Amino acid sequence: MIQTSSIELSSEGHCDIHDITSNLQRAIRESGLTRGQVLAFVPGSTAGITTVEFEPGLVRDLKEFFERLIPEGEDYHHHQTWGDDNGSSHVRAAMLKPSLTIPFEKGQMLTGTWQQVVFVDFDTRPRDRSIVVQLIGET
Amino acid sequence: MIQTSSIELSSEGHCDIHDITSNLQRAIRESGLTRGQVLAFVPGSTAGITTVEFEPGLVRDLKEFFERLIPEGEDYHHHQTWGDDNGSSHVRAAMLKPSLTIPFEKGQMLTGTWQQVVFVDFDTRPRDRSIVVQLIGET
Amino acid sequence: MIQTSSIELSSEGHCDIHDITSNLQRAIRESGLTRGQVLAFVPGSTAGITTVEFEPGLVRDLKEFFERLIPEGEDYHHHQTWGDDNGSSHVRAAMLKPSLTIPFEKGQMLTGTWQQVVFVDFDTRPRDRSIVVQLIGET
Repeated sequence: MIQTSSIELSSEGHCDIHDITSNLQRAIRESGLTRGQVLAFVPGSTAGITTVEFEPGLVRDLKEFFERLIPEGEDYHHHQTWGDDNGSSHVRAAMLKPSLTIPFEKGQMLTGTWQQVVFVDFDTRPRDRSIVVQLIGET
Repeated sequence: MIQTSSIELSSEGHCDIHDITSNLQRAIRESGLTRGQVLAFVPGSTAGITTVEFEPGLVRDLKEFFERLIPEGEDYHHHQTWGDDNGSSHVRAAMLKPSLTIPFEKGQMLTGTWQQVVFVDFDTRPRDRSIVVQLIGET
Repeated sequence: MIQTSSIELSSEGHCDIHDITSNLQRAIRESGLTRGQVLAFVPGSTAGITTVEFEPGLVRDLKEFFERLIPEGEDYHHHQTWGDDNGSSHVRAAMLKPSLTIPFEKGQMLTGTWQQVVFVDFDTRPRDRSIVVQLIGET
């Protein structure tokens, strides 16, 4: 049994990090599935999905890490192609990747207590985002 | 319903990036499935799969990023094990990972307009590659 | 058909790398499934899953890569939140991600000969770990 839905959110970009754990857990609960996998997938090439302990210190640590690794202000060849300024967003997103699969049992994601699923928006401007949520499972 | 097929391609290595979006979309169309997930997986430990806006500027940006992060010419302990020269390829591939799952609905991948699925070959020589494509879905 | 099990292991942390390939292959064999996917998922936010050629040189190369990219000894904002010393573990784990999906056919994972599935523990202390293994497939 496969079900597809979405999470809608507004993001500031610049490595804006959103906790989507409760959204995913709600999708599982509403589906009535007890065992299976939830896939979170970002359409678009300037954002990604991962897990992290969602607390303000680590949110800052991640922002600083990505800024150090792939700085926003540098020149990217991508900027010559379209006149965009978000080459860093694309390179960061290609590295973090747009997809994450999480198993669940008894209707509960098998994540750790301090492990939240997060959407990370690397774009250089605020955007409305729609994240695909797809469940595969058994009732 | 699960179907497995493959994509065959020839790659130059050295962070050679191939757009496999149309190959995956064709596999979905030929399967007759309307809703589900497509998994792209690289057998081998010197390549990876991700998504990116596939345009020449970003292709150069990604190559330069990986060369800066994990340079080809440096010395790696792996070179002492087998006499290989591709330690950088292995470390890059372990970071990017060999697997990507993309959801589809109505027979169409739910990727963004400017988001292509790419195979990235980090090896240090040309190679023929076979990428596994596995579909799970409903008709 | 979906089956969930786990792999139990003891890890030293500090980028301790464990080959879990045979554990995953055994789960497939015991399930009786012939075609499908195996998902390996780490509950917890200080470890990840990827593939690598598991030989001592590359194990050292990966440890040195992560130590250079996200050093253990530096100061992280996370340390101010809880008094922890493992900010590096969290940032590394968020980058590597906790999830990996591998296809199988005829009861065999479609990995390359020199490609092992590995659990990487980034925490700064020894820990007992339980890795979730979930199979989706057909008999």
